[in-house]
Amino acid sequence: MRTATIEQLAGYSTSLLAAAGADAPSAEAATWAVLHASAHGVDSHGIRLLPWYAECLRTGLANGRPDIKISQLRRAAARVDAGGGMGHIAMYRAMDEACALARDCGIGVSLVVNSTHFGAAGAYTIAAADAGFIGFVTSNSCAYVVPHGGSRPIHGTSPISLAAPNPGGHPFLLDMATSSIPWNKVLRYRTEGLTLPDGVAVDAEGNFVTDPNLATALAPAGGVDFGFKGAALAGVAEVLGGILTGMRLSSEQSREVLGDTQVGHFAMAVDPTLLMTLEAFGFRLQTYIDSFKSQPGTYAAGGPEWERKCKRDADGIPLPDGLYADLEAAAATAGIDFGL
Amino acid sequence: MRTATIEQLAGYSTSLLAAAGADAPSAEAATWAVLHASAHGVDSHGIRLLPWYAECLRTGLANGRPDIKISQLRRAAARVDAGGGMGHIAMYRAMDEACALARDCGIGVSLVVNSTHFGAAGAYTIAAADAGFIGFVTSNSCAYVVPHGGSRPIHGTSPISLAAPNPGGHPFLLDMATSSIPWNKVLRYRTEGLTLPDGVAVDAEGNFVTDPNLATALAPAGGVDFGFKGAALAGVAEVLGGILTGMRLSSEQSREVLGDTQVGHFAMAVDPTLLMTLEAFGFRLQTYIDSFKSQPGTYAAGGPEWERKCKRDADGIPLPDGLYADLEAAAATAGIDFGL
Repeated sequence: MRTATIEQLAGYSTSLLAAAGADAPSAEAATWAVLHASAHGVDSHGIRLLPWYAECLRTGLANGRPDIKISQLRRAAARVDAGGGMGHIAMYRAMDEACALARDCGIGVSLVVNSTHFGAAGAYTIAAADAGFIGFVTSNSCAYVVPHGGSRPIHGTSPISLAAPNPGGHPFLLDMATSSIPWNKVLRYRTEGLTLPDGVAVDAEGNFVTDPNLATALAPAGGVDFGFKGAALAGVAEVLGGILTGMRLSSEQSREVLGDTQVGHFAMAVDPTLLMTLEAFGFRLQTYIDSFKSQPGTYAAGGPEWERKCKRDADGIPLPDGLYADLEAAAATAGIDFGL
Repeated sequence: MRTATIEQLAGYSTSLLAAAGADAPSAEAATWAVLHASAHGVDSHGIRLLPWYAECLRTGLANGRPDIKISQLRRAAARVDAGGGMGHIAMYRAMDEACALARDCGIGVSLVVNSTHFGAAGAYTIAAADAGFIGFVTSNSCAYVVPHGGSRPIHGTSPISLAAPNPGGHPFLLDMATSSIPWNKVLRYRTEGLTLPDGVAVDAEGNFVTDPNLATALAPAGGVDFGFKGAALAGVAEVLGGILTGMRLSSEQSREVLGDTQVGHFAMAVDPTLLMTLEAFGFRLQTYIDSFKSQPGTYAAGGPEWERKCKRDADGIPLPDGLYADLEAAAATAGIDFGL
């Protein structure tokens, strides 16, 4: 299979997004975020999103030259107005601000308003962990997910992510959709004629279906028996992402792919040195992470992602034929050199 | 079936705990917490815990007369030393403090150290919501839950709870164990000769089992297909409850029923009026809650609990024969009038 290095893909991504109308900070932030996902093997939120982002910039769904405004609301809380721009640049700034507030106050939060799709939530919690803070992020998103036992979407595939710093090893990294699977998996299974696992998608009557052509919406994480827990977590994304920020509920978004607007995000940082040094915190975190080692195949959250990152750092990011063709077509549309 | 009113049970509970050695604030806080659970139909964390708490007080696992110390760490962060006492009194104080910090700073957190079992996490997030704040609580607890795909416990049934205020209706209330089911459900199914659902418990080799007599540990929430998400959330409880506070990991607790010591809790509050009035926040929250109404049988998080609370407020708290006998025996042991 074709592969590309992070550096090659970064060059492609920033050129593509700039050609589609993004200013340099927006293009670079979106590039970092998608490459975070691709490097960690989270391909649903990796470079495959770039042609969509370019399209959103061209159609004006996302403003490529946003006027991002940061204002302090209270001692430990800030508002970040994304100015209708791409969510990535707003979220990196929001997490920077949350970390600065946490350094001063112990904990800090940024509420992001007037934003759009931000890609993988883990990109921003890892940014916090790299800066020495525990990062927490959630966001609402357009509704593709039925409530547990329901037939019509209320929730987005809304993510919840938490990362914790580990100076001597890999950070703890939870980055989960509150849906069972991403909607694009349903689309891909349709194209490829595959059968879905049980408990992940429903038809228009709310029955679980495994034929992707019958699926009209996703089930919440947890499947047939535990979907009420995934749906409740999606509610947390709604409360902190959509309601607290005064933005649209997931169910009020138009259901265009990556076309969410007036989205709200919640970015929080906690200083892990409130009661100990960062090294002591990392030592205890590593003790926890190491406690999985005696049970092969089990991992602390983020374990599989770090293994994939090691492999991809060495071997490059895989570019399956379909993805390669999509990226090539996007380059042609944008009128840039493809070069991958 | 026998029933009792909240008032009757409050009298029983405070007398029982006082006779077992609890000072008045400790006895009252534990009583409020278990009655929160019983009133909302969360019977696993309701009045059935009272005989266990009395036993923990008598054996000294929990200190009935703790010296609780609150110290401010940073502008928005406090430390609450539970003094080895019952977790309930420490957590109510911690959430009060977090709300006071959030009023000033927009967000606030209390780290509780040297604590023991605190009952239902939702008792404290609802206390925050009642005070007009979004409350978030997590805690680690002794290890009964295997990692996804594993055979030996690493995580506790550790809870995650978030509540959001709603001046015009019922608060949003997520209060979930990160395990599939509580361990006491396995014990009860053994006694009653029942078969467990699939995907909730494992044997010593890590195979899913439905015979409760073969079960040696619980599976994470999410079951066979999605247990990795429950396990990752349990990791959040570990990071924020156990590691950030410098307390024991779940796997370092002794596996005695309710006998956790050196437990850490995380209590956070966010001011919902950062960008709007409390009424506007509640209006949007109610819009979200109402969006479930067109799909009968579906609920925003907390919906079933509020329905049960309405019913129990009217009909009383049910006292099945086994529970009634346990409470009666506990009264006899403590030498108090039973009176239920």
